[in-house]
Amino acid sequence: TRTIDLAVIAGDGIGPEVIAEAVTVLEAATADEAQLAVTTYPFSAAHYLETGRILDDADLAALAAHDAILLGAVGGDPRDPRLAGGIIERGLLLKLRFAFDHYVNLRPTVLYPTVPSPLAAPGEVDFVVVREGTEGPYVGNGGSIRTGTPHEIANEVSVNTAYGIERVVRFAFAQAEKRRRKVTLVHKTNVLTHAGGLWSRIVQAEAANHPDVAWDYLHVDAATIFLVTDPARFDVIVTDNLFGDILTDLAGAISGGIGLAASGNINPDGTFPSMFEPVHGSAPDIAGQQKADPTAAILSTALLLDHLGLPDAARRVEAAVAADLAERGSTPRTTAEVGAAITTRLH
Amino acid sequence: TRTIDLAVIAGDGIGPEVIAEAVTVLEAATADEAQLAVTTYPFSAAHYLETGRILDDADLAALAAHDAILLGAVGGDPRDPRLAGGIIERGLLLKLRFAFDHYVNLRPTVLYPTVPSPLAAPGEVDFVVVREGTEGPYVGNGGSIRTGTPHEIANEVSVNTAYGIERVVRFAFAQAEKRRRKVTLVHKTNVLTHAGGLWSRIVQAEAANHPDVAWDYLHVDAATIFLVTDPARFDVIVTDNLFGDILTDLAGAISGGIGLAASGNINPDGTFPSMFEPVHGSAPDIAGQQKADPTAAILSTALLLDHLGLPDAARRVEAAVAADLAERGSTPRTTAEVGAAITTRLH
Ligand SMILES: CC(C)[C@H](C(=O)O)[C@@H](O)C(=O)O
Ligand SMILES: CC(C)[C@H](C(=O)O)[C@@H](O)C(=O)O
Repeated sequence: TRTIDLAVIAGDGIGPEVIAEAVTVLEAATADEAQLAVTTYPFSAAHYLETGRILDDADLAALAAHDAILLGAVGGDPRDPRLAGGIIERGLLLKLRFAFDHYVNLRPTVLYPTVPSPLAAPGEVDFVVVREGTEGPYVGNGGSIRTGTPHEIANEVSVNTAYGIERVVRFAFAQAEKRRRKVTLVHKTNVLTHAGGLWSRIVQAEAANHPDVAWDYLHVDAATIFLVTDPARFDVIVTDNLFGDILTDLAGAISGGIGLAASGNINPDGTFPSMFEPVHGSAPDIAGQQKADPTAAILSTALLLDHLGLPDAARRVEAAVAADLAERGSTPRTTAEVGAAITTRLH
Repeated sequence: TRTIDLAVIAGDGIGPEVIAEAVTVLEAATADEAQLAVTTYPFSAAHYLETGRILDDADLAALAAHDAILLGAVGGDPRDPRLAGGIIERGLLLKLRFAFDHYVNLRPTVLYPTVPSPLAAPGEVDFVVVREGTEGPYVGNGGSIRTGTPHEIANEVSVNTAYGIERVVRFAFAQAEKRRRKVTLVHKTNVLTHAGGLWSRIVQAEAANHPDVAWDYLHVDAATIFLVTDPARFDVIVTDNLFGDILTDLAGAISGGIGLAASGNINPDGTFPSMFEPVHGSAPDIAGQQKADPTAAILSTALLLDHLGLPDAARRVEAAVAADLAERGSTPRTTAEVGAAITTRLH
């Protein structure tokens, strides 16, 4: 049988708890088709505070040898001054996304039938956000002068390339072909005219290759309105790195919380391993208490399985989660109980 | 009696309809205290298409002589290629905000008791967003090279200054002193470290001057979650130009729609006239049909009255709107009917 050579970065806070369940589910889901070989890596805020090391070139080389990466969550106590300025987020999470050219940040949003939404009448929520992952305001191209004085000026540069946008837009239209054939570009073309103009022209050009796919455009501010008033209008949203960050947290919130929101940081070319992670963070306030919902991490393994060409196993994971969600009562369960309930359905 | 020398830019689409009602309300609300002198200006997408002129230095000089500006909405058919690239938004609306140094974009969000919200359990929604209005990604500091080729690179620069942030943060804390004494800074400090660091340091420094005001920080993505799961947690949100744009549309959506969302583009120093406008756009699809809700424009006049030092009149407008909202049935009314119902309550 085939071997899946998986790197696991459990990370900080609730990361290790949710990842333990995700790995168990992954093993159960692939039992007939593949052998799971797991290598764990300690990269995390805790590891940094202990060793002073975040992620170096040798670490990247080690990770690059795996088929895929499963990540829990990284980030320590937000008030710890040693972690200020997003040093872990940028030095670990974003570094991996950029180093491994994860230009597609894929974030499906599904409101499962029995899951409560904060919306009074959400309707059918089933869309996917294709967030660009390697450009935009995330490139780390900022700086300041007269820092710390009353004359400080701090700039941040959003960098957008035809090369970078074309490939993610192509991916978005390919997703739409497999779904309800509708792409919505979200940007702010009336203010960010250069970046917005580039995105618009590229979407228009790609749309011409897909006469069967309808497309429209929304300003990012208007998109947030529709996400709470008519989320059923969306099928595939394609957008830049920052707008995608904002929209996917909101999308998670309306579909039952980010405890259910999965994501894949994908390098579709296969040059580098792709990385799968729940959208939620490390939630240090509830860490170690078995309170975290592992469902987002578990659903992320379905994206991983799809990416590795194991769609049957991916569908089994999704079906097990859907069945579990349908039967979830209001009695709280531990992280391990949720994981076990989903795993049982896979045997 | 005092004279209020008001410039009115009714604008495009539903702008003229909602402004007609707002001016009538303003007259009724100030009848005992002031004489309203209205000068109308034709600036709009329609005017541009007719004359080729958007807003020049002479226009700015004329507007600068007024006590305040009331604006309906500007913007034509979004598919009209002659209006591409946000030429009206940038050449008219943003030009006014920047030329008249409207560094506070004040956007209150109140969910009135009987108004339906898309949220199942919104709770008490009563907060104000203090959006910076003259910096950030809105400065128009972008450009592209190799434009139109597969090698195009388009950059957008967000410019943030200590000077610009300090003054708006001061305004936000002053607002909090008059409200429930809570300020939330919203930014993305873990990614936009230079701009985010500057915002954080300035908020911390200003907070030290207000020991009675509590403050916290949220990443912009997390802020959108709280806006749908727990909007009652907010009192004063202070944030940058782009994040404020996004959050206030979402805030409008959860509090009954942007048909109710008022805003003020304020120059607190009084060097230039401040400008008051509904958050909504020109909605060309329903223009001229008396379908638009003038309430947002009418509530914007309350902000205008507050700014001009007529708080009693401002409270009367708000009370009339609250009373009207409380009695609104489900039978649709025309724009003029809503305006008349509110005006009647002011006599
Ligand atoms: C932790 C942070 C850097 C990250 C992001 O902004 O991309 C997170 O919010 C996410 O959405 O995965
Ligand atoms: C029309 C547009 C330029 C404007 C903005 O982005 O500020 C609008 O969305 C608003 O919020 O007033």
